[in-house]
Amino acid sequence: MTPVRLIDIVAALGGELLGDGNVVVARIAALDSAGLDAITFLANPRYAAQLPGSRAACVIVAPALRADAMARGTALIVDDPYLYYARLTQWWRRREASPPVPGVHTSAVVEAGARIAADASVGPLAYVGAGAVIGPGAVIGAQAHVAADAAVGERTRIAAQAVLGTGCRIGARGIVHGGVVIGADGFGFAPVKAEGGNAWEKIEQLGAVWIGDDVEIGANTCIDRGALEDTVIDHGVKLDNLIQVAHNVRIGAHTAMAGCVGIAGSTRIGRHCTAGGAAMILGHLELADHVHISAASVVSRSILKPGTYSGFFPIDDNAAWEKNAATLRQLHLLRERLRALEKKA
Amino acid sequence: MTPVRLIDIVAALGGELLGDGNVVVARIAALDSAGLDAITFLANPRYAAQLPGSRAACVIVAPALRADAMARGTALIVDDPYLYYARLTQWWRRREASPPVPGVHTSAVVEAGARIAADASVGPLAYVGAGAVIGPGAVIGAQAHVAADAAVGERTRIAAQAVLGTGCRIGARGIVHGGVVIGADGFGFAPVKAEGGNAWEKIEQLGAVWIGDDVEIGANTCIDRGALEDTVIDHGVKLDNLIQVAHNVRIGAHTAMAGCVGIAGSTRIGRHCTAGGAAMILGHLELADHVHISAASVVSRSILKPGTYSGFFPIDDNAAWEKNAATLRQLHLLRERLRALEKKA
Amino acid sequence: MTPVRLIDIVAALGGELLGDGNVVVARIAALDSAGLDAITFLANPRYAAQLPGSRAACVIVAPALRADAMARGTALIVDDPYLYYARLTQWWRRREASPPVPGVHTSAVVEAGARIAADASVGPLAYVGAGAVIGPGAVIGAQAHVAADAAVGERTRIAAQAVLGTGCRIGARGIVHGGVVIGADGFGFAPVKAEGGNAWEKIEQLGAVWIGDDVEIGANTCIDRGALEDTVIDHGVKLDNLIQVAHNVRIGAHTAMAGCVGIAGSTRIGRHCTAGGAAMILGHLELADHVHISAASVVSRSILKPGTYSGFFPIDDNAAWEKNAATLRQLHLLRERLRALEKKA
Repeated sequence: MTPVRLIDIVAALGGELLGDGNVVVARIAALDSAGLDAITFLANPRYAAQLPGSRAACVIVAPALRADAMARGTALIVDDPYLYYARLTQWWRRREASPPVPGVHTSAVVEAGARIAADASVGPLAYVGAGAVIGPGAVIGAQAHVAADAAVGERTRIAAQAVLGTGCRIGARGIVHGGVVIGADGFGFAPVKAEGGNAWEKIEQLGAVWIGDDVEIGANTCIDRGALEDTVIDHGVKLDNLIQVAHNVRIGAHTAMAGCVGIAGSTRIGRHCTAGGAAMILGHLELADHVHISAASVVSRSILKPGTYSGFFPIDDNAAWEKNAATLRQLHLLRERLRALEKKA
Repeated sequence: MTPVRLIDIVAALGGELLGDGNVVVARIAALDSAGLDAITFLANPRYAAQLPGSRAACVIVAPALRADAMARGTALIVDDPYLYYARLTQWWRRREASPPVPGVHTSAVVEAGARIAADASVGPLAYVGAGAVIGPGAVIGAQAHVAADAAVGERTRIAAQAVLGTGCRIGARGIVHGGVVIGADGFGFAPVKAEGGNAWEKIEQLGAVWIGDDVEIGANTCIDRGALEDTVIDHGVKLDNLIQVAHNVRIGAHTAMAGCVGIAGSTRIGRHCTAGGAAMILGHLELADHVHISAASVVSRSILKPGTYSGFFPIDDNAAWEKNAATLRQLHLLRERLRALEKKA
Repeated sequence: MTPVRLIDIVAALGGELLGDGNVVVARIAALDSAGLDAITFLANPRYAAQLPGSRAACVIVAPALRADAMARGTALIVDDPYLYYARLTQWWRRREASPPVPGVHTSAVVEAGARIAADASVGPLAYVGAGAVIGPGAVIGAQAHVAADAAVGERTRIAAQAVLGTGCRIGARGIVHGGVVIGADGFGFAPVKAEGGNAWEKIEQLGAVWIGDDVEIGANTCIDRGALEDTVIDHGVKLDNLIQVAHNVRIGAHTAMAGCVGIAGSTRIGRHCTAGGAAMILGHLELADHVHISAASVVSRSILKPGTYSGFFPIDDNAAWEKNAATLRQLHLLRERLRALEKKA
């Protein structure tokens, strides 16, 4: 990255600088690995012991660590070092990034009837269907796909090879990463008698996907269109990679979910929730606001009370697990035997 | 959607109409949310109590609810309301959808030696390899990929950015959703001694993927090619999104699997089976016909008897889970202690 | 495949042939299904009983089975039959495969400033960004995406519709399968106060992805770019399909992971490890060399000792599972009751 002066950082992002503003930093680095050319931050008081030993050119710390930071050397005092770090990455990235080229690349295919804002960018080999609307400053990446009647909000970026399906809509300032598929058919079939058992008759999915503002969607994540109404992802939701959002799901504002999560059909998830990686949330459930699901846990009933919920089998060395798993398959009987003993005692 | 008269629905799909056939409906809606312009259906007798209060223009019900439905107003009596609903979505979608444009889009790349039916459609920026065969009425979506020597059956649709690999084959009336990868290499390696442990020597995957008729494959699902023989997905199978089907797997006809399921190599699954979301089926197993695996359950041995099988750790508030999980790691010892007590008693 | 003589196989790959080198084989097949035109192999002594009944034209066996193999007919004696089989698939595939056409397809888009080796191949509708480097003999598949400043090593193949993100790098002889997304943003956000709870401020991901030589990456797998440093996949690593590798993860050389595995952020995995399908490894952990994680197991703490580790709920018929799962939710209390009894006894 292009080196910057501390004084330029402070001018852009605020904070109280202790030391020489003309010091130049060339990178952001972690506290324990930062070299002499780096700015670093101390967000978690647990790592305070690493502070004196850091070689960084400047350390971003909270007011409580002002004295310790000064004892070490140049420091930047801010209310929330982690948030400041986030904004520093954004500021630096904006300085570096070449702005997308406005206009439609000659190799892109744009169907008649699409409306593309003058300063939007449609990349090489991208496709924009009839009736699609691309908002001001939006960026459609190389080989991305915006289907007919879909809408991309202001300054939203659709990365290489992502798909926004027919009639689906994403609001402003969103990011859709590579390989995402928004608006594939929900998984809906009616059983119909056939030889040897049921076959499956397709239920056409007549809804679409509605995504609010400031939503980020990780690589290869899928969000299916609704059966009759829209699947809804509210403002500020953050989804990591390889997540499955089934039809008719509703995810409340500012909820964040880590990679490999699955949400089955028609489940409604509240605002400000989180789900750890590979959490699985079954269908037709309701999760209240501020519900937090641990990684790899299976939600099989509605959760109406805020809190943290968990459930996975603890890992062990293989031999121990085998014995415990075998016993677990008789757990109900063990309980009966215990009861019998209690009666005797 | 374009409004339709009830009489037109009955003319197309049958059923006994109670009430005015000239009533016009503009949408299909759920029983509890249907407005005055909607047709709805009552498939699950559990919801019968909602019937009198529904504002829908028309309710599709089974013969058993004929009297209740008449008491409410206009109704359509059919043998299987859910199946009728499925067919109604299909009929309505067909009326709405603009048929795909036959022919090859000028921006598509079709290699010499590909055979494309005259009324098939190859979309913008799609790729069709040498020796590939695209059947009558088939639709290859924008930016989709049909590799060399692959075959797409009559009226099958390959959505945007799906990949059908070299020599792979899908039958008639199939649907392959966006981002699907059919025919990537199965995961096969032979260990070979290297410094500090084994390295891995690639086993080239010489089989392909064979997919029957009426198969639907959800977004970003992967079906790997076989090592020596083909991986096989039989007629009528329905796979949801983000499913992994490893090499040499065989899935029997009319089996349906929800999102995020994984099936390891060489496993054979019967006909008319189901798997809930994120079920994991280990390799080299056999599942009989009519086996149903619950969501998030791990199949680690063959299942030769029809039935429903489950296994996941029940979710709980985090503190309770922690205590129970810790105890679980000593379960085998608890059993020993119980046995000791029983001997004493 | 084109039929070959046994003598040609031996000339290319070595081994001691017992029988007529002019025998022609048309395929490789499994021991139990091989026909008269097939060569087969016996890698697992467990299957030795199948040897006498095999109809194969030739059987590849280890020296220990020399006598049994001779009694049956034509045989090829090699030190490691499974490794020989792997190399045989490679040799045969190389004979069959039409070499990729060197040069850039006219429909591909290559930005100014990309450097492409003269004998590399850039397929139809592929994209290569400014500053990207494509090494000698590398193959960029149809519709694949190599972003700006990315680097593809010698003879590495990027399959159809895979994405190598900005500034990311893969070494020599790699294989990246369809739909893979390398270099999407890691999932990093700082909480920021908002109405009703926290919203999320994006942490720009300033690192990239560094991938060594001889790495294979399965279809639709995702490897995110690092927050500050690179995410690292070392030499010889093999990843199956639909795997999630979060930002800042490091995977040691020759580690192999089956489909649907997830690895959360900043976790470091050793060399020569394996993970079964759908294993989930939480974040900020360390796994030593030679650690093996069973399928569907959740790694929630660091594992510093080589060995095999497991943890998943054993599957059972649904009714039995329900009873055991309900009891499991009271397991801690059962333990208390057992303790109470022990005190009495």
